[in-house]
Amino acid sequence: MLSGHGGNIKQICVEYGLNPDEIIDFSASINPLGCPEVVRKAVSEQFSDILNYPDSQCTDLRKAIAEKIPCKESNVIIGNGSNELFYLIPRALKPEKGVLLQPTFGEFKDAFCNSDVEVVEIINDNKDFPIINTNLSKLQSVEDGMIFLCNPNNPTGQLTRKEDIIELVNDNPNRLIVIDEAFMDFVEDDEKYSVIKDAPLLENLIVVRSLTKFYGFPGLRLGYLVTNESIVNKLMRYKEPWTVNTIAQVAGMAAIHDEGFAANTRQYVSGEKTFLYGGLRMINGIQPFQPTVNFILVRIDDVGITSSEIQNLLLKKNILIRNCSNFVGLDEKYFRVAVKTRQDNQKLLNALELVMDNVLSEENNQNDCVPAFVTGKM
Amino acid sequence: MLSGHGGNIKQICVEYGLNPDEIIDFSASINPLGCPEVVRKAVSEQFSDILNYPDSQCTDLRKAIAEKIPCKESNVIIGNGSNELFYLIPRALKPEKGVLLQPTFGEFKDAFCNSDVEVVEIINDNKDFPIINTNLSKLQSVEDGMIFLCNPNNPTGQLTRKEDIIELVNDNPNRLIVIDEAFMDFVEDDEKYSVIKDAPLLENLIVVRSLTKFYGFPGLRLGYLVTNESIVNKLMRYKEPWTVNTIAQVAGMAAIHDEGFAANTRQYVSGEKTFLYGGLRMINGIQPFQPTVNFILVRIDDVGITSSEIQNLLLKKNILIRNCSNFVGLDEKYFRVAVKTRQDNQKLLNALELVMDNVLSEENNQNDCVPAFVTGKM
Repeated sequence: MLSGHGGNIKQICVEYGLNPDEIIDFSASINPLGCPEVVRKAVSEQFSDILNYPDSQCTDLRKAIAEKIPCKESNVIIGNGSNELFYLIPRALKPEKGVLLQPTFGEFKDAFCNSDVEVVEIINDNKDFPIINTNLSKLQSVEDGMIFLCNPNNPTGQLTRKEDIIELVNDNPNRLIVIDEAFMDFVEDDEKYSVIKDAPLLENLIVVRSLTKFYGFPGLRLGYLVTNESIVNKLMRYKEPWTVNTIAQVAGMAAIHDEGFAANTRQYVSGEKTFLYGGLRMINGIQPFQPTVNFILVRIDDVGITSSEIQNLLLKKNILIRNCSNFVGLDEKYFRVAVKTRQDNQKLLNALELVMDNVLSEENNQNDCVPAFVTGKM
Repeated sequence: MLSGHGGNIKQICVEYGLNPDEIIDFSASINPLGCPEVVRKAVSEQFSDILNYPDSQCTDLRKAIAEKIPCKESNVIIGNGSNELFYLIPRALKPEKGVLLQPTFGEFKDAFCNSDVEVVEIINDNKDFPIINTNLSKLQSVEDGMIFLCNPNNPTGQLTRKEDIIELVNDNPNRLIVIDEAFMDFVEDDEKYSVIKDAPLLENLIVVRSLTKFYGFPGLRLGYLVTNESIVNKLMRYKEPWTVNTIAQVAGMAAIHDEGFAANTRQYVSGEKTFLYGGLRMINGIQPFQPTVNFILVRIDDVGITSSEIQNLLLKKNILIRNCSNFVGLDEKYFRVAVKTRQDNQKLLNALELVMDNVLSEENNQNDCVPAFVTGKM
């Protein structure tokens, strides 16, 4: 496999002797519209701020986010990407166990392991990967476990309803529930699913969000969490100082006030995910999962090709997809693609169709060579 | 006290209702020449790189640093500031104890505490704070302790000779010695003191460096460590991904190749530290420590004023100094100032002279009011 994560375009290009500028990256699920122009402008205008240490408290950004949710500033912690916060939570709160419903975002497991917390993984055995009450019940059957749940789930795209999460939180007053809403900004009817407004008011809920996927600047790093003040205080005792650099803070301040960009993004992604999903459905030998946000999980039929092989074949056409075989609960039958611009999406569809047509015709040829009594096709 | 760290200008200004643009910040020890022009240019030209995830391996920057030292790329880890690395080391290597010679940089203690490592503090009882063999012997008398040492030491400026450090390392094969050389780039005859070239070759030595103090961009965050490959591998198992953002990597690449800037900086700081030290020596009631790099520690005589009070009085003149009373081993008699530009240094000298003259004349007046038999001055 090329890489353990999406978006590691640099390493892949070094390894394969490719030019990063020529690759269309479908492996990282980033806003296809890029980042708001106001971000570039703000960074350029405030560049000289790098001569001072960053504000370790991220005062302005915490205030701006708190106003938007709305909640108090004392309910918000800013992170050097949401990743810093995933690692901070088990480190500071030291749960007995970490509980995950797989497949899900791989960093949750790494974050628990980083703090030497035992990880219990519940494998979602329904191959549509719904996150429904039966699964949530399995999660809470693990005693003393802190539950990390991703909503919408990466890489499956499955959404969990708000009332189901609130029920899980209320039924488990003695354990902490952490909800990763990294892609929630892309969801049109997010109030049906998001629990971010509830987090400051409940005893045992943390909601983590990313700003870099929706606002298209993953090269900076910016995320935040919302929870009650008591948990904020416990986490802050373990938070390292100055992790969020000045440019990321400036970019975040500019981005979150750009309502026009946010509305355009939701509209554009909505249209393109429908287009890409429709196109993927027309390709023989693969089954795309109904998308909810800006990425689509795809299952390969039993046609004699793996996700690694498809990834390699597409890379020869300068297209990088996310091979999902290293997600716990998935295997060599799965890959994920981001929803990008119409032009890029069309290129992916054309290239993938060609790959799959070749596979299927090869398979047919092979079958042709085998006597009918062996294949059972008589 | 205003703040637990130097450089927290934002928080201080919020607290005191001041305008950050009007404050001259002597509390953070940053290159007075700012950052190289090539950094701004590189960041501006490569700004669109933020649309991709940062290279988690920092491939280019590791290569460039390895070439400069010289060592292998596999001997280098890049951090989101040297601070990330201070926290990473005890987390990954889990020593029984952490041993510090106080006073020193406060983050070492916090880094040990963050990983629940017991901290043993040896207080340097020679009030010139030299780091000599007697002190180093005390450090190694603590069994099973990982030693963190700062060279030149922050905030005292004291240098430790290279041969003394190598002896410490060789005499202690079963414990790890971590040397923070954050300010070593400012030292003119650094080969007498730095052990960075030795770190890849020895079994138990890690050298940590900062790029943001010398190259004047603390608002980004960039540091690195050099050690042997076996320790690198152990640390990388606990290093969080994508901590170093793209802009910091771009800035670092541009900065470390700017030899002219480096030479100018050393020359300028050398002249200004002599000027500022000379000026401070002329002020009654304070004793500056002989500086080695771009900051100067100052001890206040028994004249009835504390470092907090001096800090507050100077802040009214828009000058921020680093009150050192929260350094273990120091107290309300100590403050630290950065070496800045001639104009700023002169402003500090003028303001501080006025403050101290007022203190001394008040003290004289008070003494005048007290009968001679009480003061004992007969």
